[in-house]
Amino acid sequence: GPWGVRPRGRRALHAASSSFQEVMLTSERYRVQRLPFSPVSDSDVAFFERMMPGRVITNPEELKPFNVDWLKSVRGCSKLMLKPQTTAEVSQILRYCYERNLAVNPQGGNTGLVGGSVPVFDEIILSTVLMNRIISFDKVSGILVCQAGCVLEKLNKYLEDQGFIMPLDLGAKGSCHIGGNVATNAGGLRLLRYGSLRGTVLGLEVVLGDGSALDCLASLRKDNTGYDLKQLFIGSEGTLGVVTAVSILCPQKPKAVNLAFLGCQSFAKVLETFTTCRAMLGEILSAYEFMDEKCMELVERHLKLSSPVTGSPFYVLIETSGSNSTHDEEKLNNFLEQAMTSGLVTDGTMARDDKKIKALWSLRERITEALTHDGYVYKYDISLPVGKLYDLVTDTRARLGQSAKNVVGYGHLGDGNLHLNITAESYSHSLLGAIEPFVYEWTARYNGSVSAEHGLGFKKKQFIQYSKASEAVFLMQRFKAMLDPKGILNPYKTLPSGS
Amino acid sequence: GPWGVRPRGRRALHAASSSFQEVMLTSERYRVQRLPFSPVSDSDVAFFERMMPGRVITNPEELKPFNVDWLKSVRGCSKLMLKPQTTAEVSQILRYCYERNLAVNPQGGNTGLVGGSVPVFDEIILSTVLMNRIISFDKVSGILVCQAGCVLEKLNKYLEDQGFIMPLDLGAKGSCHIGGNVATNAGGLRLLRYGSLRGTVLGLEVVLGDGSALDCLASLRKDNTGYDLKQLFIGSEGTLGVVTAVSILCPQKPKAVNLAFLGCQSFAKVLETFTTCRAMLGEILSAYEFMDEKCMELVERHLKLSSPVTGSPFYVLIETSGSNSTHDEEKLNNFLEQAMTSGLVTDGTMARDDKKIKALWSLRERITEALTHDGYVYKYDISLPVGKLYDLVTDTRARLGQSAKNVVGYGHLGDGNLHLNITAESYSHSLLGAIEPFVYEWTARYNGSVSAEHGLGFKKKQFIQYSKASEAVFLMQRFKAMLDPKGILNPYKTLPSGS
Repeated sequence: GPWGVRPRGRRALHAASSSFQEVMLTSERYRVQRLPFSPVSDSDVAFFERMMPGRVITNPEELKPFNVDWLKSVRGCSKLMLKPQTTAEVSQILRYCYERNLAVNPQGGNTGLVGGSVPVFDEIILSTVLMNRIISFDKVSGILVCQAGCVLEKLNKYLEDQGFIMPLDLGAKGSCHIGGNVATNAGGLRLLRYGSLRGTVLGLEVVLGDGSALDCLASLRKDNTGYDLKQLFIGSEGTLGVVTAVSILCPQKPKAVNLAFLGCQSFAKVLETFTTCRAMLGEILSAYEFMDEKCMELVERHLKLSSPVTGSPFYVLIETSGSNSTHDEEKLNNFLEQAMTSGLVTDGTMARDDKKIKALWSLRERITEALTHDGYVYKYDISLPVGKLYDLVTDTRARLGQSAKNVVGYGHLGDGNLHLNITAESYSHSLLGAIEPFVYEWTARYNGSVSAEHGLGFKKKQFIQYSKASEAVFLMQRFKAMLDPKGILNPYKTLPSGS
Repeated sequence: GPWGVRPRGRRALHAASSSFQEVMLTSERYRVQRLPFSPVSDSDVAFFERMMPGRVITNPEELKPFNVDWLKSVRGCSKLMLKPQTTAEVSQILRYCYERNLAVNPQGGNTGLVGGSVPVFDEIILSTVLMNRIISFDKVSGILVCQAGCVLEKLNKYLEDQGFIMPLDLGAKGSCHIGGNVATNAGGLRLLRYGSLRGTVLGLEVVLGDGSALDCLASLRKDNTGYDLKQLFIGSEGTLGVVTAVSILCPQKPKAVNLAFLGCQSFAKVLETFTTCRAMLGEILSAYEFMDEKCMELVERHLKLSSPVTGSPFYVLIETSGSNSTHDEEKLNNFLEQAMTSGLVTDGTMARDDKKIKALWSLRERITEALTHDGYVYKYDISLPVGKLYDLVTDTRARLGQSAKNVVGYGHLGDGNLHLNITAESYSHSLLGAIEPFVYEWTARYNGSVSAEHGLGFKKKQFIQYSKASEAVFLMQRFKAMLDPKGILNPYKTLPSGS
């Protein structure tokens, strides 16, 4: 997932983070120029302390974790973090910043993978951490309305008690905020079944760069009165407005969940297994994930996890979610019998109880964590026509030869989403030159996307032209100029600089 | 549906249309002022005839049906229709019109219900009728790419042969174009199951008001590279750009379809039946429609249809679509037993074979047609919290008393979408005054939408403020001014005038 590949919960996140070394300032490493925003002055701090006493952070030690991303790959030097509790406060903050020409970095759970969630220079960090109120939930329609700072896992637990679930799930669920999920158009593990946030998000409340609030917080499944403004903010990574509240359509909690973890002898068989199971499982198929044997090796070596299925070049994880356990198991058994007898699958295991399901999922979800223990990681999150998905891994592996330590591929096969990761003992400029623009050009050749779900943030923004026509990028820049005329919202992110 | 309530196929459409009288020019009836666009000159016609010989219509008789909407409620006086075949031709046309300041009315199947699809004055009709080419279909991903003028029903037939279906279905499917469906964000009968076009449309090609083409025609399930520009054009009713091609994600064709047609003794029981069947049918529920006994009376009286279920104040239509007929029937039987024994439902019938399924669906789908035979029709397409849905019908009926002939309610209950229709012997200004703004104020009080799926077009644009905040409308106007600076694209539509 955009964070669908992360260890669950805070403890695991911290454990992983501590294995990184201190990073250079982003501005030094990427040689980026600060734009002429005002520096934060003492009188600015005094203003905010009067406005929201006790919720203004200036202590450098306290600010440290909010200046660095989860991967420890980029670091800013913000001297001020604000923790508003209401939309009115966010408005007041941005109105002030707009007048004073102060740059702002909106921040949720800070779990992004492309450097979009931390300051690049000294932007004021606007944290949604205290905006964590559930506003309403309607059990008949399944529509939840809540503030942007609600943690995804907490929302899911709240809903489960009432027979519903969130329509998205990611590895970072224990830390990420729903506002950040919306701002980055998070994908994750349930997209195959419940679709993207563009369909499930029904309304948004957003504060624009000049501090004006835009109320599009409808709680209706259908509304065709004018243009759908909220869509522009979904996936805009905080560069067009700050999401302060979300209205979202939640599916019913499935009564039965089953998992199958299977070994395949080739990627062609992974693909054929997908089309077979989609036809036989139909409406109950809720996830189809894959990983190659290199991923499994790293998870076993670095995290000491052990897989019940071994000896295959590829593994797939198939999840079903349905309303009738007898029916679901019958469908799954029929499919497995077919897959085994026709030789699509050579080995496998099934899980019905919660504990075994979690253990099997962790083999897939903790790959990112395992990779961080393998050395420096070059990360790519690619959309491709599903038939071409693994060719990129094979071609990259052949191209890099001995210069890379490991080249691995895994991801959301059902969505055509490959996570390509390359590890090396340490960062090397010449290895980077061998990977880029090769990977981006390869992706563009097959009309793929250079960011399926992670977004562009700071680290990928210069590569947008591999997936978007120049007229489209130009139009995006016009939208940015219109909605945030001073450019104070999450500067240096999403759109390419120097144009 | 936005057209989900229409007779299927061309023959039925014509039969219904012929029962209307000739309508007044829209400009006379609504006292709207023509904006200072250039009139079409002989040299303009000559230019287009050189550019696309044989595809330029100027014969007034031939133009007639394209100047009047399907309801025969509004009529323009365009003297020129163009039938481009390619995106390049659409670009060329709009570039010319932009330079010459000529207004343009993009038109698909002309099946809209709010006067959005016909000219108001002498706008040039830009028809997509010859842009009917399927560009590609990928059986692994289920992604279809086609030109905007493909007829919905034809696309569905093409897909069915390959084991897939379109993610939307409407009564007007025999005439409507997929480009028009996208431009109006059509809802219809499958939304409950497959979600809105905002999730299923993966890419668009659009030509802007100055003739520049915008290529966002990605065929990827996931793509987070920058802002999602295509969303702005979905539901913009041709006012921001002309959709020329569509990429759309298509679900697999269900192997089993079942229909239940049931009678309920109160609206409270209609609601309880919905929550019960959603819980028991889960992932196979594909439609939950309702109608009141007045609807049934009109369908029987005017169309001579007869219902196998009678004597109830409310009727519901429940459709299941799944991959295993044995499982589906078992689920449906369990639900029906529960609904009968608990008294939610007093009478009912089930259908499995295609012919009986079609006959039962027509009781619901032909209500709009039946209404047109009942006299002058005041039409409202409202989104409301589902529990409040029928209160609007009851309150309107009580308010109007003997001054209305019939006040009926039906619609997509599962989506919170009510079609409220009021008939009278003929149009009456005082009756309109009793209905409006009452219906809109009632809707606004419960945070509903005054147009769930029909859009605003020409006839509803002045009511946008009942569902949208003034800042939101202001922002829409800024988008319009940015994307179509001369305002030549479908003028007088969607956004309120005089601001």
